[in-house]
Amino acid sequence: MILYSMPSSGNSYKVRLLLALLGRRDVSLINVEAQSDALTRARQDHRLPFGKAPALMLEDGTLLPESNAILCYLGEGSQFVPADPVERAQMLGWMFWEQNQHEGVIAVRAALRTYPHRRAQATPDHMADLLARGHDLLKVMETHLLQHDWLTGTGPTLADICLFAYTHSAGDRGGFDMTRFPGIRAWIDRIVRLDGFEGLEGSRGQS
Amino acid sequence: MILYSMPSSGNSYKVRLLLALLGRRDVSLINVEAQSDALTRARQDHRLPFGKAPALMLEDGTLLPESNAILCYLGEGSQFVPADPVERAQMLGWMFWEQNQHEGVIAVRAALRTYPHRRAQATPDHMADLLARGHDLLKVMETHLLQHDWLTGTGPTLADICLFAYTHSAGDRGGFDMTRFPGIRAWIDRIVRLDGFEGLEGSRGQS
Repeated sequence: MILYSMPSSGNSYKVRLLLALLGRRDVSLINVEAQSDALTRARQDHRLPFGKAPALMLEDGTLLPESNAILCYLGEGSQFVPADPVERAQMLGWMFWEQNQHEGVIAVRAALRTYPHRRAQATPDHMADLLARGHDLLKVMETHLLQHDWLTGTGPTLADICLFAYTHSAGDRGGFDMTRFPGIRAWIDRIVRLDGFEGLEGSRGQS
Repeated sequence: MILYSMPSSGNSYKVRLLLALLGRRDVSLINVEAQSDALTRARQDHRLPFGKAPALMLEDGTLLPESNAILCYLGEGSQFVPADPVERAQMLGWMFWEQNQHEGVIAVRAALRTYPHRRAQATPDHMADLLARGHDLLKVMETHLLQHDWLTGTGPTLADICLFAYTHSAGDRGGFDMTRFPGIRAWIDRIVRLDGFEGLEGSRGQS
């Protein structure tokens, strides 16, 4: 299998993190960085079905888009997917919330601060609005994580891996005030200590 | 079970549509319309875990948020969830794309045209931007549906139910030009003809 991965993107990182935690070394990486020729070529060749990384190419050439759908595909049957139907639904609830609410604010604010080609969109009003909305979203996680070690059930699931990707860098990259969220910071520490953990800049071989 | 449902919202409608197609009459509805006292009360009582409808309350009081997670919970084991792992991943891919891309444009433009309390946001520039982006997103569906009857596999899945909700009303409510998308229009006709189908304004009893 081949993972088309954008190294600096949380959506790609969450898939790499799951692969690391599962100890899987059978998935090759092809890097397609933002604004790169590799990204343009992958789009032109339709190897990114929705035009976005990550995408997973299976042995028969089938392409799976969408980071969270890839997590579900690779995680099925592992310790990161609960057997209980209610816990599975709660896990998916956090993952859909991440794509519908969290990513469009937390990740977008980080991208506007990070990527030169997006700086024109980073007006003061827009950045202030994203900051306020992001703190509200982080508060949703905080409220839960002050009372629970994990987003659902008694151990880490795909929901934790999914939301870790853009949350762990929300302070440094997004400019959010993480001192307000001790529950999230303790949860981040729990994830970093998981066997096999690798950071966003992980040393795992990249082609 | 109780479904907290916002009658005019596509996210709530998609759950009602699945219940109708499954022939399930064991789920009670409680309506929480936008700006209503019922919505305010449900939020205050934390019966909407992320503050949004729909939410499904199970017999033991557990609350499941997020429309697409509720679809997965209610649809598991039915004909609308493929057994094949790759088809399941493709189904989830469309559903995450719906929440990350489609809903934030197609549904938002319809809401800005429909709900009086949101009209202030409907500036000409914003509406024109949403129109152009919406047509691009509908083209992604069109390209697929010109070659396939369904979004994945050989029959309707949760992905079709999910994306039907805001797509079938994209012309009337969103102001998108659906004459450009004959593949989508034929797919809408196939869904409307499914056994048990009910429309957004369906006659199914609502409390």
